[in-house]
Amino acid sequence: MKDKKGIKVATIGGGSSYTPEIIEGFIKRHDELPVKELYLVDIEAGKWKLDIVGSLAKRMVEEAGIDMEVHLTLDRREAIKDADFVTTQFRVGLLDARIRDEKIPLRHNVIGQETTGAGGMAKALRTIPVILDIAKDMEELAPDAWLINFTNPSGIITETLSKYSDIKVLGLCNVPVVMHKMAAEILESDEKDLKMDFVGLNHLVWGRKAYLNGENKISELLDKLAEGDFSDVENIPDYKWSKELLQSLGMLPCPYHRYYYLTDMMLQEEIEAAKSEGTRGEVVKGLEKDLFEIYKDQDLKQKPEELESRGGQYYSDAACDLISAIYNDKGTLHYVNVKNNGTVNCLPDDSVIERTSYIGADGAYPLNVEALPPQVKGLLQVVNEYETLTIEAGVHGDYNAAYQALTIHPLVEGSIVKELLDDIITENIDYLPQFQR
Amino acid sequence: MKDKKGIKVATIGGGSSYTPEIIEGFIKRHDELPVKELYLVDIEAGKWKLDIVGSLAKRMVEEAGIDMEVHLTLDRREAIKDADFVTTQFRVGLLDARIRDEKIPLRHNVIGQETTGAGGMAKALRTIPVILDIAKDMEELAPDAWLINFTNPSGIITETLSKYSDIKVLGLCNVPVVMHKMAAEILESDEKDLKMDFVGLNHLVWGRKAYLNGENKISELLDKLAEGDFSDVENIPDYKWSKELLQSLGMLPCPYHRYYYLTDMMLQEEIEAAKSEGTRGEVVKGLEKDLFEIYKDQDLKQKPEELESRGGQYYSDAACDLISAIYNDKGTLHYVNVKNNGTVNCLPDDSVIERTSYIGADGAYPLNVEALPPQVKGLLQVVNEYETLTIEAGVHGDYNAAYQALTIHPLVEGSIVKELLDDIITENIDYLPQFQR
Amino acid sequence: MKDKKGIKVATIGGGSSYTPEIIEGFIKRHDELPVKELYLVDIEAGKWKLDIVGSLAKRMVEEAGIDMEVHLTLDRREAIKDADFVTTQFRVGLLDARIRDEKIPLRHNVIGQETTGAGGMAKALRTIPVILDIAKDMEELAPDAWLINFTNPSGIITETLSKYSDIKVLGLCNVPVVMHKMAAEILESDEKDLKMDFVGLNHLVWGRKAYLNGENKISELLDKLAEGDFSDVENIPDYKWSKELLQSLGMLPCPYHRYYYLTDMMLQEEIEAAKSEGTRGEVVKGLEKDLFEIYKDQDLKQKPEELESRGGQYYSDAACDLISAIYNDKGTLHYVNVKNNGTVNCLPDDSVIERTSYIGADGAYPLNVEALPPQVKGLLQVVNEYETLTIEAGVHGDYNAAYQALTIHPLVEGSIVKELLDDIITENIDYLPQFQR
Amino acid sequence: MKDKKGIKVATIGGGSSYTPEIIEGFIKRHDELPVKELYLVDIEAGKWKLDIVGSLAKRMVEEAGIDMEVHLTLDRREAIKDADFVTTQFRVGLLDARIRDEKIPLRHNVIGQETTGAGGMAKALRTIPVILDIAKDMEELAPDAWLINFTNPSGIITETLSKYSDIKVLGLCNVPVVMHKMAAEILESDEKDLKMDFVGLNHLVWGRKAYLNGENKISELLDKLAEGDFSDVENIPDYKWSKELLQSLGMLPCPYHRYYYLTDMMLQEEIEAAKSEGTRGEVVKGLEKDLFEIYKDQDLKQKPEELESRGGQYYSDAACDLISAIYNDKGTLHYVNVKNNGTVNCLPDDSVIERTSYIGADGAYPLNVEALPPQVKGLLQVVNEYETLTIEAGVHGDYNAAYQALTIHPLVEGSIVKELLDDIITENIDYLPQFQR
Repeated sequence: MKDKKGIKVATIGGGSSYTPEIIEGFIKRHDELPVKELYLVDIEAGKWKLDIVGSLAKRMVEEAGIDMEVHLTLDRREAIKDADFVTTQFRVGLLDARIRDEKIPLRHNVIGQETTGAGGMAKALRTIPVILDIAKDMEELAPDAWLINFTNPSGIITETLSKYSDIKVLGLCNVPVVMHKMAAEILESDEKDLKMDFVGLNHLVWGRKAYLNGENKISELLDKLAEGDFSDVENIPDYKWSKELLQSLGMLPCPYHRYYYLTDMMLQEEIEAAKSEGTRGEVVKGLEKDLFEIYKDQDLKQKPEELESRGGQYYSDAACDLISAIYNDKGTLHYVNVKNNGTVNCLPDDSVIERTSYIGADGAYPLNVEALPPQVKGLLQVVNEYETLTIEAGVHGDYNAAYQALTIHPLVEGSIVKELLDDIITENIDYLPQFQR
Repeated sequence: MKDKKGIKVATIGGGSSYTPEIIEGFIKRHDELPVKELYLVDIEAGKWKLDIVGSLAKRMVEEAGIDMEVHLTLDRREAIKDADFVTTQFRVGLLDARIRDEKIPLRHNVIGQETTGAGGMAKALRTIPVILDIAKDMEELAPDAWLINFTNPSGIITETLSKYSDIKVLGLCNVPVVMHKMAAEILESDEKDLKMDFVGLNHLVWGRKAYLNGENKISELLDKLAEGDFSDVENIPDYKWSKELLQSLGMLPCPYHRYYYLTDMMLQEEIEAAKSEGTRGEVVKGLEKDLFEIYKDQDLKQKPEELESRGGQYYSDAACDLISAIYNDKGTLHYVNVKNNGTVNCLPDDSVIERTSYIGADGAYPLNVEALPPQVKGLLQVVNEYETLTIEAGVHGDYNAAYQALTIHPLVEGSIVKELLDDIITENIDYLPQFQR
Repeated sequence: MKDKKGIKVATIGGGSSYTPEIIEGFIKRHDELPVKELYLVDIEAGKWKLDIVGSLAKRMVEEAGIDMEVHLTLDRREAIKDADFVTTQFRVGLLDARIRDEKIPLRHNVIGQETTGAGGMAKALRTIPVILDIAKDMEELAPDAWLINFTNPSGIITETLSKYSDIKVLGLCNVPVVMHKMAAEILESDEKDLKMDFVGLNHLVWGRKAYLNGENKISELLDKLAEGDFSDVENIPDYKWSKELLQSLGMLPCPYHRYYYLTDMMLQEEIEAAKSEGTRGEVVKGLEKDLFEIYKDQDLKQKPEELESRGGQYYSDAACDLISAIYNDKGTLHYVNVKNNGTVNCLPDDSVIERTSYIGADGAYPLNVEALPPQVKGLLQVVNEYETLTIEAGVHGDYNAAYQALTIHPLVEGSIVKELLDDIITENIDYLPQFQR
Repeated sequence: MKDKKGIKVATIGGGSSYTPEIIEGFIKRHDELPVKELYLVDIEAGKWKLDIVGSLAKRMVEEAGIDMEVHLTLDRREAIKDADFVTTQFRVGLLDARIRDEKIPLRHNVIGQETTGAGGMAKALRTIPVILDIAKDMEELAPDAWLINFTNPSGIITETLSKYSDIKVLGLCNVPVVMHKMAAEILESDEKDLKMDFVGLNHLVWGRKAYLNGENKISELLDKLAEGDFSDVENIPDYKWSKELLQSLGMLPCPYHRYYYLTDMMLQEEIEAAKSEGTRGEVVKGLEKDLFEIYKDQDLKQKPEELESRGGQYYSDAACDLISAIYNDKGTLHYVNVKNNGTVNCLPDDSVIERTSYIGADGAYPLNVEALPPQVKGLLQVVNEYETLTIEAGVHGDYNAAYQALTIHPLVEGSIVKELLDDIITENIDYLPQFQR
């Protein structure tokens, strides 16, 4: 691919507030990754955001003085045609849907979260029909293109595509990136010298080992983490892990593990936050409003600092890095969502895992890993089967699969599954064609 | 084995209130299963019970007029020496320990139950050192004998023996027997014409199919169960399964599934019962007291009807049936706990599963089964890993393993694991040599 | 099924010289297995044989005085319609094709045998299109019927049906039956008291254990076999196994193992036999001619003794036994070809294995088995992959698959694969529609 | 490891004629791989060779003007103590043993080859006791060192160490290196731009894919290979692959596949060569004699060109590259023999495979690979089980395992196994302590 001149990229959900980050990412890599055409695509309802952020994008590119055309369009097929890379960062139903995903479960006294638990299932059910449509367009119009998926729940969406389409796809998440940075900080090492051995599912990933020049420093990392004061992602309460939990686990948990390991604390926090400042979705809605005001400023010609507080930092940078590794056949390690294919031997071959992977022009090779310890296996397996059921429900509109997905999810209480599921379907029905019968 | 005259059986925990049932079982099968010597063994603390129930046993045998010697002893090695079958029905720490297993978790607002969840783990930790001692005696004194284990948690104990001893062992539980009887009642068929395809773990077993003369009637069974009014075991509240749950599951859940599928309802019920009539252990303690009064009656020469209300009905009958199938190389199907060995392909080979199995003189062959659906896999796998960790904790006194066992158990809330575990170890320390350091 | 009155059986290849054996089998089991209608089906080219053997069949039934109608027909669909059981014993291309299967490989200096090696592949390629046609008829006209397949290569044919049709199918072979009888003779035991643990592929099956009342006598069996003088099947030269081979193998090899373990001796024997009395096919052609002369005798009203020398003895009896076990939900053990489904963990789930299996009205459960030793695994796996390739070649007319099937087969020399394969296809082209392009 | 100054390397079998190549390899990489101490170790019988080649090594280092001390020693423990890397290139029994490995099988009319078939087994049996001794020394004296094994049969030896020692080990072979070079020549590409996807066992490795900048060129490679005239290794007759074989295989076979795919041709060639110029071992013995004459020349201060004709070219260069990748945590791809651990899902986890692997300071990660096609699986599996048995025979002196290893090996004829094995053991008994009883 390296020989190709003039890369074409299509970004679905181009009106997102994150767009300035990906623009910055392409600008600073322009020498090694010569993006010639960048299509920012959005839907009618997102046109006003696309206009604002697209205009900023154009100013950023002009300021940088590079040869890259930024196109704004509502025509997804035009954007995808002959693209080399497609990135997805859209949100079906916008932030209002996210707020529902948080509030409906809370109403039934279970965790309400954008990607994890019942809220994550709702988001998956809305997103699956759309992502399969995009995949169909790609199969027709850009069969050799790579889809780099950021849309959450990133693992489930990537697995849906892996199972139900023929396109080349990798999923991305900023969580391992943030964990990598935190681990480097804890070990007082340069980020570049650190190699994290991540394994698991998206938003349920463990740092199994932490290599500094070939030496595994995971014990030191866990000891220091238990003693010190370090923070990870923005959008999740920062409860400290206990020494006992870290030592018995023997791995670095991800921020989202708090939902599983500290369920009641997280639930109480959510309930109280919902009463005071609002759910995270409501907070973000405010942040976004502010961001778009800032973006409107015609003198702004670079990514504004305020974007950092938005929550998904490093996402777009990780994506640009990954795209460059593929384009340049780099042979570097990245943390991606990729088909398991026997890597994690306690999960099915066709599951999509999140794993440290070798990336070249021919794609991703998740690094081989030994059998995982029981404490990791058990949780991984039950959440994986929840994901399998959610995908079946999302693709086929299978109520029974959705019912059982919620029933076995560790964060959902069995007694209220029917009421919860019926609320989810009823209140999202406009976005659930597969359940409209 | 069939040619052997004069079978010797050793029953460990012979002072149990269940003993009259096993005596009755041997009496009524004496023609096909000529038990010549039956040793009822107990420990010093159980001597008074052994004397009462042993005396009843002798009266029952005399009344039956069969050639069977009943020996009462506190010398376990004498009982085991050259035995053909050893059965285990003891309870380490007696009913007081059970009551603690119920009350400690409830104190932390999680399910407190004899075999399932935190209470089951406590029971396993107490029982493992004793069962391994028994196995060592058997390896030395009766290496060809079969151990038929009833002691709960029956799956975990059987798996411990399968992994950490060389003896021949099968685990038994009355739950599939009760489910079989209920299914026959629902289908209005003779119990003998029904073949249930059970699969899972002990106390987490599903009825996958229900064959009447080769035809699978599981849908009919589930439909009628959802509509009708049928009851299963005595010791678990009888909440009805919803039609949605049964249809989406597609299998017959076991009574203990209520803890997983209806957690909050069960927890509330437990909390209230503890306040009113007492925990199940406290209720049973009263029942047992009454039973032993009845057993004392020198005119009583058969199993009294009152034993039925005790909860573990059909246990001993299933055991006698199993022993006879081995002794007579019958080639019949039984529901046993047996090494998985690839039968359930989503569980490790060395796990012990509960499964419809073919029994002959050479042991048990769990029937081959197709891949299980995700809703069953997920729950099965996480509970299986909990069991794996519990066994490691029980055998090696591994605090970290116990910590993670509770952490991943679906019925335990992560935030309180440390306090809960420390309470369990502290209050059971007299029975936990592996943790006495 | 038991309740059904008036079983209908269709026997494809009803003009076979074996038919009197299956008639005898149904006659002697008529009380437990009330076959009401038996359709003997054949093709135009076999009509003269069908008339002769069909007439004998009718005389046998009349003599027995049972209520069973024997129909002779060339209309396969009429025979299959609403049948309860279909049995297959046809030979595509008749004995002349078999003789070619023996002579073509010999011409290239490799083993020429009806079922094993290049000859077996040729036979599979001819048979697969026909058996898939039969399966299509069954899917349409008798979807609940069982197909009991005797047609060789029995394992490959059964696997083809298991992979490429929806019908219920079990494969049968007389080899384990003959081995069982020989083992009983060696151990001086009653056949009924012996339980052989067979595992492998059809015509590549090992006797892993030999239980007499629960005790494994395999060592004694192998020792006595090495010392004594015992014979197995008729159609394979009776070379004795060496003590070293038996001891290092640790299992009872099947007669066909001589092709793998004593290749050169068998090849030399074949070459010389071909020169003197003719290949086995040529010998059988003579035997059959004689048999049909005998069958013509209108006074003959039972299976003539001369059939014994034909080679496939006990086949039909095993089939009747199996049919009765299904019909009566007997729960007995039989040696059948059945979908692996994880039983032999070194073979794919969708392979068909030959294994001691539990048979009931709901079908066959191959008995669970521990991991096989390397000496068995290696040979089993390479022959299994040969079979996989042969099935692909047979179903899709895939020349490359056929080429590689021969290339990896242990009995075929790589240097001559092209010439050998081209001869096979050219000389069988009338029977190979999938290769006619 | 990178920070360490002054790397220590111990080369066992330092008197080998290959040593100048490894010296050259260290000299040219001295900047990135600062070897400070190089110990060339040999045994008493090899002292004269060690003196000659060691002296040349010292002259080469002096000429290069680098800071590296070359030590010659017969004290293996001194050499291993605190080493960072140990390389093995010894041959137990010297070339005379190799000649026996070629001649004994030929005497029984089967392939006689140094590493493949019966000769390879003999070599493994001699080498295993010595390599396990070396591993024991390393466990004691240099527990963190890497063993880079070249000693043949490289896969079997590496697997023995992986199963029966605790040291860190990787196996190397020049075959994939030579295949890579040939593939680059065929595709007319730069070697550096080509990424070969190799998978299999040592000396039974297939080139599955050939990527040029992310595009798989395997079809083009096979087409051109079938048409053109390209050569691979020196020591194996260069029979061309037929178009049919390459197309039906769909992968690039390795030179040693000729033994499996063209057995008779290779056997005839061997028989004739043995009669005329002598076996390959006899030829090499002559070449070596000449080489040592050249090495004696005190004016020679670099690797002489004549070494190229010796046969194992690129071996040492590949080793230096691998050592540098580990030392410098390079993250590059190498073709190594490494523990399978689920990579090839049709082989056991504890087998050692040959595979394109990612190498860093923490070791080797064999790249994830899809399920292999049946034609590759079958041969791979049977040879893998031969290797498993050979290792058991070599470690435990297990005659039965050796017997069955030969029995299932595709290149050995079953009828003569006993005679062949007895000859091997008798004529090698001085080097087989495990069989001396």
